[in-house]
Amino acid sequence: MASTEEQAVAVTTNNDHLVQSEDPEHPANLIPELCRKFYNWGWVTGTGGGTSIRHGDHIFIAPSGVQKELIKSENIFVLQWPTKKYPAEERSYIRRPLKLNPSACTPLFLTAFENGAGCCIHTHSQWAVLVTLLVEREKGPDACFEISTIEQIKGIPRGKGKGMLGYYDTLSIPIIENTAFEENLTSGLEAAMKKYPDTYAVLVRRHGIYVWGDNVAKAKTQCESLDYLFQLAVEMHKLGLPWVK
Amino acid sequence: MASTEEQAVAVTTNNDHLVQSEDPEHPANLIPELCRKFYNWGWVTGTGGGTSIRHGDHIFIAPSGVQKELIKSENIFVLQWPTKKYPAEERSYIRRPLKLNPSACTPLFLTAFENGAGCCIHTHSQWAVLVTLLVEREKGPDACFEISTIEQIKGIPRGKGKGMLGYYDTLSIPIIENTAFEENLTSGLEAAMKKYPDTYAVLVRRHGIYVWGDNVAKAKTQCESLDYLFQLAVEMHKLGLPWVK
Amino acid sequence: MASTEEQAVAVTTNNDHLVQSEDPEHPANLIPELCRKFYNWGWVTGTGGGTSIRHGDHIFIAPSGVQKELIKSENIFVLQWPTKKYPAEERSYIRRPLKLNPSACTPLFLTAFENGAGCCIHTHSQWAVLVTLLVEREKGPDACFEISTIEQIKGIPRGKGKGMLGYYDTLSIPIIENTAFEENLTSGLEAAMKKYPDTYAVLVRRHGIYVWGDNVAKAKTQCESLDYLFQLAVEMHKLGLPWVK
Amino acid sequence: MASTEEQAVAVTTNNDHLVQSEDPEHPANLIPELCRKFYNWGWVTGTGGGTSIRHGDHIFIAPSGVQKELIKSENIFVLQWPTKKYPAEERSYIRRPLKLNPSACTPLFLTAFENGAGCCIHTHSQWAVLVTLLVEREKGPDACFEISTIEQIKGIPRGKGKGMLGYYDTLSIPIIENTAFEENLTSGLEAAMKKYPDTYAVLVRRHGIYVWGDNVAKAKTQCESLDYLFQLAVEMHKLGLPWVK
Repeated sequence: MASTEEQAVAVTTNNDHLVQSEDPEHPANLIPELCRKFYNWGWVTGTGGGTSIRHGDHIFIAPSGVQKELIKSENIFVLQWPTKKYPAEERSYIRRPLKLNPSACTPLFLTAFENGAGCCIHTHSQWAVLVTLLVEREKGPDACFEISTIEQIKGIPRGKGKGMLGYYDTLSIPIIENTAFEENLTSGLEAAMKKYPDTYAVLVRRHGIYVWGDNVAKAKTQCESLDYLFQLAVEMHKLGLPWVK
Repeated sequence: MASTEEQAVAVTTNNDHLVQSEDPEHPANLIPELCRKFYNWGWVTGTGGGTSIRHGDHIFIAPSGVQKELIKSENIFVLQWPTKKYPAEERSYIRRPLKLNPSACTPLFLTAFENGAGCCIHTHSQWAVLVTLLVEREKGPDACFEISTIEQIKGIPRGKGKGMLGYYDTLSIPIIENTAFEENLTSGLEAAMKKYPDTYAVLVRRHGIYVWGDNVAKAKTQCESLDYLFQLAVEMHKLGLPWVK
Repeated sequence: MASTEEQAVAVTTNNDHLVQSEDPEHPANLIPELCRKFYNWGWVTGTGGGTSIRHGDHIFIAPSGVQKELIKSENIFVLQWPTKKYPAEERSYIRRPLKLNPSACTPLFLTAFENGAGCCIHTHSQWAVLVTLLVEREKGPDACFEISTIEQIKGIPRGKGKGMLGYYDTLSIPIIENTAFEENLTSGLEAAMKKYPDTYAVLVRRHGIYVWGDNVAKAKTQCESLDYLFQLAVEMHKLGLPWVK
Repeated sequence: MASTEEQAVAVTTNNDHLVQSEDPEHPANLIPELCRKFYNWGWVTGTGGGTSIRHGDHIFIAPSGVQKELIKSENIFVLQWPTKKYPAEERSYIRRPLKLNPSACTPLFLTAFENGAGCCIHTHSQWAVLVTLLVEREKGPDACFEISTIEQIKGIPRGKGKGMLGYYDTLSIPIIENTAFEENLTSGLEAAMKKYPDTYAVLVRRHGIYVWGDNVAKAKTQCESLDYLFQLAVEMHKLGLPWVK
C-alpha cells in the first residue's frame, strides 16, 4: 500500500519502450501474469503484496495500491540498477507511470537484489500470517518457523550455490516483527538476512512473507513451496501433528 | 433476492444506450465483471448479493434473482440520481430490463450513495456470516467485529478524507441484526452509519456484508481486505488466537 | 458411475440434430457448461454426479463414467418423455452416443421430472456428505438436516407455487440411506418426496445430494444455495455454533 | 524435483515429431493440460509432482523442476518401451529436450507401466500427506489408509479386471515410507504393489501419492476420487467421525 514517502518521489521520465515487449518472458509481461496467479491464490487481494524483477541493470516493480489482477505492462515502474534505497526521492527511476506510486515494498525488494536475487515476491498469504502467530505463541517471539521431513521442503534451497534442502533437513524461516510503515521493515529484513545468510525468505509477523530467488521461476516456485508448507503446518497444528519430527 | 415490493415497480423506459459502451471501465461493463469475480470467490452464489455503481447522476444496479456470473450489460437497471428510496414505485428508473427486478438491496445501495459512496457491494460471504455469529456469542449482540495489528487492516480507510487505518489501529465493523425483508435493513444500516460515521462497511448478522467505497476500485479492494480479515479471524478463532492484541 | 443394468440397454438411434444447436441456452449446450462449473466447485470430480434437463418432451442426460468437465454436446443422451423408469431396457432413448452409458442416476432424474422438475442435479459435494454424517450422529438416522435464520435460506422454495422460504423459517432437507446401486435409491427418493412433498432436494447419506428445480437456473441456484448452507453448517459445527436458532 | 542421477543422463536425440500432434488426445498435448489442472487443484505447485503416459511403445514424461502449469509439448521426454529402470544412463530416451531433466519419478512411473498401467500421476496433495500422518499416529507405521461406505469409493477399481469397488467395500491404500531421494522409493513401491496386487495407488508418507490407471482418463479420475476421499477423511477426523463404519 502507498506511503507518503513514495508519493513525494517526482516523475522523472517515461521510457515506455522499457515495458513494451512481445516476449512473454519479459519482466513487463511476467509481472502482470504473476500477479494474476497470486491474486487467484488469495495472496495479494485488496492490493496487498507485490512483485519485482531484476533484468540486467533494470529493476521492474509493480505499482502500489492497484488491483493486482488488473496490472498492465504500462503500469510498471523501472529503476536503474544499482540505485539508492534511501532516501526514496533519490532512487534512479527511469520510468514512472503517471498517477501511480511504486510499491512501498521497494526498499525491501532492493535489499533482496543487493543480496543477489533476480526476483522478489511479497504476499499477504493467510497461511504465512497464521504460522507467524502460532510460532510466537508456541515458541516465543524470537523463534523461527521450522518444519522437517516433508517432501516439499526439497523445493527450497539450502543456501546460495548449496543445492536444495533434503528430506531429512529442517527448513528454518526467520520471522521479523511488523512495523507501522512497510519501508521500515527494511532494517529488520537486512538483520534477518545477515543472521540467516542462507535463507531465501523472511516471514513478517501478522503481515505475510518476502520470498526471493535467483530468477523468476525460482522465486515463484519457492514461494509456492513455502505456502504449501505453511498451509500444511496450520492443518497439522489443527490435527495435533508436530511440525518437526 | 426479489421482493414483492420490487415486483410492483412499473417499467418506465428502456434507454439501452445507457448500458452500451466499448469502455471496459463503464459501469455497465464493470458490474458483470465484478459479479463474475465475486461468484468465483463464493460471495454471490445462489443469486445472493449484488453490486451497484454511481456514475455521475446515474446509478447502475445489478438485477435481482439472477445468476451473478452470467449477468450481461443489458440486464442492468439505471436510476436517475438523486432518487427516492421509498416508496419503490416512485424511484426514477430511466432503464428497466424487461422481465427482471432490480436488486432488493436497492434502498441499501442508495443509502451508501447518499453517504457519498461511488460503489456499493453486498456479499453473502460465509466468513462474514461466521464472524457475526462468533462476535454475538463471545461479546454479545451489540458488539462490533474488531481486529487489530494485522497488516491487511491498512487496506481499510480510517474514515472519509482521513487516510487509511494504520497497523496498530483497531478495525471496527458494526453488526446489525438481519430482518425478514432485505429492504427493511435500511433503517438499521442508516443507524449504524450515523453511529459509526467513519465506517465503510456494515455486517449483517447471519446474512453477509455491505461494503462501499469512493469508487469501484476502492469498494472492491476494501471488500477483499475485509473478507481476508474475516477468513483470517475465523481461522484464528479455531486456533485459539485472539483477534485484538 | 455405470452399472451393468445400464450397459444392457441397446443403442436404438442416433438423432444427432437433437444435440446440435447454436443457442447457448439449449440443454445440449447447458449441460456441458454446468458440468464444467460443478467440476470446478469440486462437486463432480472423479466422474461422480450428473445433470439432466427436461426440454418439452425430451430429457437430456449427461453420460456416465465420463470426466464431467470434458463433456461435449455430442456425448448427451436424449429420452422421449414420458418414458419408463424400469426396466432400463424399455426406456425410450431417441439418441444414444456410441460407447457411452447414460448416467446411473437416470431413474432418479426421471423421478424428479415426474414431480414436475425441469432440471435435476446430482453432486457428491463433500459438505453434503459431512452434514449427513453429522445429522446421523447428533440427531439419529431418521432426522432431516435443519438450519434456520440464515439469509441464504431465502434461495430455497417453500414448495411448488408457494414462494421462497423466509429468513425466520427452518429449512428442512430429508436424508435417505445410500444403497449399493445408485438406481436402487429411486424408491427411497420417491418415499422422501411423498413424505416431504415441498422439498426440492434430498440428501443421500455418505453419498451426496439430488437437487431439482422448475428450470435450469432454479435447479442450479438452489443447488448453490444448499451447498453454501451445508458448508456453513459444517464450519458452524466446528465452531460450536448451533444450526437452528 | 531433479536429482544428480538424472542430470548425468546424456542427450541422445531430439525427435521433435514425437511430441507434435494436432490431436488433443495425444500424450504430448494431454500432459500439459493435465498438469495445468493439477496445478489449479494445488497438487503440483512448486514444481512438485509429475505425470507420465504410455502410448504404444512410447513413454511420455513431464520434465523435472519445471513450473507444472507452464509445461509445453516441446518440454516432454520420450522413452522407448520397454526400457531399463536402472541405471538411468541406460534408459532408452528417444527424445530429450535440451536443458531439461526428466522427472525424478521416472523409475516409479516405469514400475507402474511394468504393472500394466497406461498412465501414472504423482501429486503432493496436502490431503494425501495429512492422511499418511493421521494413519501413522492412529494405527501405526504399517497400517494402510482405509475408508468404507462412502459413495466415491465406487470410483476406484477392485483390481485389474475385477470391476469397481462397491459402496459397502473398504478401500485400502498402502502407505510406504519416504526416502531421501525420490528414485529410491522404487523398491518400496514395488514391494507395496506385490503385497497389494489389486491397488491402483500407493501413498508415500510425508510426501504425496502415486496413482495409476489403465489409461489417462482412468488414472486422472481415480486420482480425483482418491483426493476427494483423503480430503473428506481429514474433515471427518476433525469432526470426530470414524473413517470405517
